[in-house]
Amino acid sequence: MPKVVVLRYGHRTVRDYRVSSHCCLVARAFGAKQIIIDGERDESILKSISDVSARWGGKFKVEFADGWKKTVEEYKKKGYFVVHLTMYGLSLQKKIRTIKNKEKILVIVGSQKVEPGVYELSDLNISVTLQPHSEIAALAVTLDRIFGGKELEKKFSGAKIRVKPMKKGKNVVKR
Amino acid sequence: MPKVVVLRYGHRTVRDYRVSSHCCLVARAFGAKQIIIDGERDESILKSISDVSARWGGKFKVEFADGWKKTVEEYKKKGYFVVHLTMYGLSLQKKIRTIKNKEKILVIVGSQKVEPGVYELSDLNISVTLQPHSEIAALAVTLDRIFGGKELEKKFSGAKIRVKPMKKGKNVVKR
Repeated sequence: MPKVVVLRYGHRTVRDYRVSSHCCLVARAFGAKQIIIDGERDESILKSISDVSARWGGKFKVEFADGWKKTVEEYKKKGYFVVHLTMYGLSLQKKIRTIKNKEKILVIVGSQKVEPGVYELSDLNISVTLQPHSEIAALAVTLDRIFGGKELEKKFSGAKIRVKPMKKGKNVVKR
Repeated sequence: MPKVVVLRYGHRTVRDYRVSSHCCLVARAFGAKQIIIDGERDESILKSISDVSARWGGKFKVEFADGWKKTVEEYKKKGYFVVHLTMYGLSLQKKIRTIKNKEKILVIVGSQKVEPGVYELSDLNISVTLQPHSEIAALAVTLDRIFGGKELEKKFSGAKIRVKPMKKGKNVVKR
C-alpha cells in the first residue's frame, strides 16, 4: 500500500473551518498517514482533529505547512509523487494505475483559487469527474481508488471508542 | 443504472451553506438526478446550484422538502429503497450489492444530529468506514459504488461550458 500524505492548500481560519476539517477527517478515515495544512495557522482545527485521533485511534498526524511550495519541494525530495486534485486535470480513472503504483504520494487538495505554480510543480493534475463539486469528495474518491477500497476496512490501533455497526440506531463501544 | 435521489437532512441557512452546497454539487456530479433539501428554506443555495446546472449541463434538480418524514414516506410509496448514511450503520462494502440492485434509491445524508425516526424509517443504515468524517465524502463514495465508477465518465447534456482535461493549467471550452 502506498504511503499517502495530504496537503490542504489555502486554509482560512473560520471561513474554511468546516471544509478543512472534513478534508482532515477524510484523510484520516480513508487511510492517509498525515495532513499538512497550508494557509492561516488555525490551532482550533489542530486540536479538534488531534482529539478525534486520540479517541478513535490510529497514528494520523496534522500539522501546518511552512508555505505550500516549500512543502511540495520537500516531499518531492523525499521521493513523493505529487498529485494535485483539480477539476481541470486529467481524469482519475485514466491515471489511477500510474498513481497507485507509487510508493509515496502527496495529494494536494486546493480551495477556490490555486496559484498556477501548484499545477506546474505537481507530477499529475487530476480531475475526479470534470464537473464542479467538492475537494472533500475528490479526496475521498481518490484515496478510495488508491487503496482499492481496502481503507473501508481499516482498523485504528489504540482506539478508546469504536462503532459497532447496527441495523438501526447507534452503538459506540468504549474500551 | 438505478435512479438516485438524495435527501439532505437538516440544512441551516448560512451555517451549513458550504457543506450543503458541496452535497448538492456532489449529488449532481456523481449522477444523482435530484437533491431535496430538508431544513431552513435557503433560496441562495437553490439559485447557486441551479446556476451551475444551467452552465454545466444536465437535468439535475434541487428542491426543498416539505419535512423529511413526508419526503421519505412519499418516496417509499413511489418504490424508492431508502439508504441513510450514518457512521453507526452497516458497512457499505457489505451491503452494496443489495443497494445497487434496486431500481430507485433515496440516499439520506444527515447533519450532526439526526432524529431516531430517520434510522427507523430507512431500509438500510449504511456506514462508509466506521470513522467520523464527512457526509460529503460518504455521499460521493456511495454514489461511486452504486454507479460502479461509470459516473466519472458521465456526460451532461446541453452544457454551455465544459472542461477540456489538461496536463497543466485550465482549459474551459464554451459552446
